Amino acid sequence: MDLHKIKSPTLILDEQKCRDNINYMLNKAKNHNLELRPHFKTHQSKVIGNWFREAGIHKITVSSIKMAKYFAEDKWNDITIAFPVNIREIEDINNLADKIKVNLTIENTESIDFLTENLQNKVGYFIKIDTGYKRTGVSFDIFLTIDKIIKASENSPHLNFKGFISHSGHTYNANSKEEILAIHNDSLKKLSSLKNQYIDKYPNLIISTGDTPSNSLAKNFENITELRPGNFVFYDLMQLNLGSCSFNNIAVVMACPVVAKHSDRNEVIIYGGGVHFSKESIMVQDQKIYGQLVNLSENGWENIIENAYLIKLSQEHGTLKVSNEIFDTIKIGDIVGIIPIHSCMTANLMREYFTIENKKIDHL
Amino acid sequence: MDLHKIKSPTLILDEQKCRDNINYMLNKAKNHNLELRPHFKTHQSKVIGNWFREAGIHKITVSSIKMAKYFAEDKWNDITIAFPVNIREIEDINNLADKIKVNLTIENTESIDFLTENLQNKVGYFIKIDTGYKRTGVSFDIFLTIDKIIKASENSPHLNFKGFISHSGHTYNANSKEEILAIHNDSLKKLSSLKNQYIDKYPNLIISTGDTPSNSLAKNFENITELRPGNFVFYDLMQLNLGSCSFNNIAVVMACPVVAKHSDRNEVIIYGGGVHFSKESIMVQDQKIYGQLVNLSENGWENIIENAYLIKLSQEHGTLKVSNEIFDTIKIGDIVGIIPIHSCMTANLMREYFTIENKKIDHL
Repeated sequence: MDLHKIKSPTLILDEQKCRDNINYMLNKAKNHNLELRPHFKTHQSKVIGNWFREAGIHKITVSSIKMAKYFAEDKWNDITIAFPVNIREIEDINNLADKIKVNLTIENTESIDFLTENLQNKVGYFIKIDTGYKRTGVSFDIFLTIDKIIKASENSPHLNFKGFISHSGHTYNANSKEEILAIHNDSLKKLSSLKNQYIDKYPNLIISTGDTPSNSLAKNFENITELRPGNFVFYDLMQLNLGSCSFNNIAVVMACPVVAKHSDRNEVIIYGGGVHFSKESIMVQDQKIYGQLVNLSENGWENIIENAYLIKLSQEHGTLKVSNEIFDTIKIGDIVGIIPIHSCMTANLMREYFTIENKKIDHL
Repeated sequence: MDLHKIKSPTLILDEQKCRDNINYMLNKAKNHNLELRPHFKTHQSKVIGNWFREAGIHKITVSSIKMAKYFAEDKWNDITIAFPVNIREIEDINNLADKIKVNLTIENTESIDFLTENLQNKVGYFIKIDTGYKRTGVSFDIFLTIDKIIKASENSPHLNFKGFISHSGHTYNANSKEEILAIHNDSLKKLSSLKNQYIDKYPNLIISTGDTPSNSLAKNFENITELRPGNFVFYDLMQLNLGSCSFNNIAVVMACPVVAKHSDRNEVIIYGGGVHFSKESIMVQDQKIYGQLVNLSENGWENIIENAYLIKLSQEHGTLKVSNEIFDTIKIGDIVGIIPIHSCMTANLMREYFTIENKKIDHL
């Protein structure tokens, strides 16, 4: 890695770690007889998408029509849009469904009725199920609503019911691995009851789930057909903090120039702010943090540096708080490495990656 | 405004309000005999920059070399980069200073020494002063450090000391207009003592300050030479909450499609998440909020809707919590208007604007 060539905030990607993460999840899915349909919203990159293809992945998940179009351009032809269908984008949906296999996510009859009226091409659809996250979706036990949606869709020659899709995002609020697994097991139970209710009528029913914490940690995927994790391709400090990954699994790091130092408070000011990292934070020992310092080297990055946190972010400034010892080793004009809290959001802001081998990689 | 043409999250700009904000601040500066050098990091737009030019502005502020280059392309030829100089970008600094008048921001002798060695063209520089925000800069009362910086710069034929630059960003933490003004007056006092110390030796000394809350509210700018506010061009919910502006001054609103409704908890799910709004939040009545609902119309937006807040954001989803009454008026597929918390961050993510007159406007 040509550290001397880095002039401004740069998102560094370790290709090998990234490919290892892909292979780990793919093998896990195979071992449990599950389809892996990875969520591409994390990387939003055609090049990284291709690493998945090389590993044997042919079906993907995205969270917007825009992303679906981006990947369809690159020959991905089986895409689930795991976001409640936005009926205002009907023209794009029709265009996309004319070219490739598209699955929509639906959770109300209003959308079904609109699509029945306006779809020109066949699409698959999943019913979005809420297993307790309470963000969106039909609660797993309200069969009446589910039946209504399925029944309404039968009026359309273009809508093909595929199954149920859920995201147990509440694992992100867990305080231990045990808690993540408890949430996962609770979701499994709920999705199983749903499967039991509908499997006779729909023997090809797909039960799709996907949050990185439980997909990374769980060993039981009973009654599940498909996994859709996204973040695991990079992981980040949030996942490390949750226990979903180890430090060596984290595949991205921010490299930022040092522009000022404040010895009265052991603070180092970096060029790297909310427009680079995003303002995602986690709490560590009652302190809100936005990233953690690592040692950068020509080969990437090595150990995490304890008690060296990004504690403030404004638009372009970041404030790093470090020990006396570390403070003295950092000089104006240095490049420091910082593990971001939420790699999806950081990648979305940075809009490009540089690999340790100095290769520039695309982002939508 | 062709609301029916909006298909996905869109940042709507009211050109007239924006021009009114520009004129208001320009007149205020004139009335106080101050130079207005507006910060263009908020809008990052050549078209909006041109509205400033039409109002009579010829000197601007930015927070990165990248922004300076963007505006230099559009004939802006007097630019202050109000961010501690990033010496790794020396090549770009030299190129820029070859073409236009550039002022750098400096707060340590390491940067001065590096620039002395590497500058090829003349630049002005300001010393960054901390008046209490404690983000960065030399504390206003440490004349020893200031003297060292000025003395070191005298070794360079290219470095021209212009004055002191400060940003009282702690006004953003104030709980009332009175508190904002108290912070402003405290900063004035500190900057005045600095001016008294250096004015004899540097009779053309510039004292530059600029945070939107105090620049909007204060009536006393004694001893100040230059204002550099940025956010005032749009304002936002944070500024409204601080009391720096009225609702009618807010010049941007997000327009987002409704994709789901949850009657059990009066929540509306919109297509519009952290990748659109940014995850900036404020506290309103002990509730963390990410935006507030307004009524959209063909002419822009009208009144704010009380107790209708964006209460959660994930990557693409936003959760709007509303009253029973409002809940019933919102339908799947509708477009809702939401005032963002921090317009600079939202604009930075959206990367383009649409005016009420349906004109598309650039963003870096």
